[in-house]
Amino acid sequence: MKLMAVTNDRFKVDHLTKIMIDTEPFVDYFIIRERTKTANEYIELITALTEAKVSKEKLIVNDRVDVAVVSNIQRVQLPGHGLSLSQVKGNFPQLLAGQSVHSAMEAERASYAGADWLLYGHVFKTNCKRGVEPRGLAELHEISKKVTVDLYAIGGIKPEHIEMLHDIGINGIAVMSTIFESNDPVSAAKEFYEAFQKIEGAEF
Amino acid sequence: MKLMAVTNDRFKVDHLTKIMIDTEPFVDYFIIRERTKTANEYIELITALTEAKVSKEKLIVNDRVDVAVVSNIQRVQLPGHGLSLSQVKGNFPQLLAGQSVHSAMEAERASYAGADWLLYGHVFKTNCKRGVEPRGLAELHEISKKVTVDLYAIGGIKPEHIEMLHDIGINGIAVMSTIFESNDPVSAAKEFYEAFQKIEGAEF
Repeated sequence: MKLMAVTNDRFKVDHLTKIMIDTEPFVDYFIIRERTKTANEYIELITALTEAKVSKEKLIVNDRVDVAVVSNIQRVQLPGHGLSLSQVKGNFPQLLAGQSVHSAMEAERASYAGADWLLYGHVFKTNCKRGVEPRGLAELHEISKKVTVDLYAIGGIKPEHIEMLHDIGINGIAVMSTIFESNDPVSAAKEFYEAFQKIEGAEF
Repeated sequence: MKLMAVTNDRFKVDHLTKIMIDTEPFVDYFIIRERTKTANEYIELITALTEAKVSKEKLIVNDRVDVAVVSNIQRVQLPGHGLSLSQVKGNFPQLLAGQSVHSAMEAERASYAGADWLLYGHVFKTNCKRGVEPRGLAELHEISKKVTVDLYAIGGIKPEHIEMLHDIGINGIAVMSTIFESNDPVSAAKEFYEAFQKIEGAEF
């Protein structure tokens, strides 16, 4: 299982950089999703992370494909309102692209269109999506049976859900507020890391 | 002299499309500057314009270089907070890029870095920049003597300013609210067109 930490667009670049550097040992990928930040601020963040030896392999740029290209970052996350997979794959064949999906139909289409991973949500109640009914696990399980591409779940996921998600074939999870709004982001990330370890240990 | 019409991020895609199609005969370039719109909405707008036979040669995408690339639009406008000229020219050599500048120093740097045109402002008082002192014409004139690249002025420009701007070596102007917040955008655009004609007629 892998952990994606999705930034929440609430911090200035220097504070965000600090949290990302601190949690980095326990995080597989960061999705940089700072919708109110400028391209310049994205670059500033990426430069600060790179200088602190955070690997670009761990960075995924949300939506701003141009920022990924000029920063030499290979991974982008495409939101539903963003550029399409075919536009991105057609014009930037060097990129790996994940697609955010909200239904089995979207998941199958994205898989067919060449998504390198899928991010499905939100599965549980979360403060980030107040008033929007969570989608639960049934459709997620359905998707995991239908597609072979890596499948991540997002939305209110806690360390105690990891085993169950692993059991229905999920490859990883993504969290936002659980890390970025925690008083102790490092411990929050570490708890997921330890939950993964437990499963992987159990496999041997 | 050339006219750039800069969109103001206040209309839905269908209404914006209509104004752009209606004014197009009198506009040399549209800078699509819709900061709160998604990449998807940019594409929707560009597709609608193209279907209405608005030439892509007239379209300039502000900030979202990725949108320009996937839409096969050759021109981008780079705001001060956006990707740098060297990042864009280095990664997307097929693009023509204009740089927005606010001083003679920025203008010289951008010219040196390979900007295909400069947009300097704001020169006069405008509702779009309330509370920010206009820069006036002195520095603009300075810039026009120093750089050879095409130089556009923006900010509160009216048709009666055209002759004077032409006389200090300005190649074109850009307007936002004068067209997009006018009750009669077509007449507003046409008035600039006629002011240009008058000058060009006087040259023969």
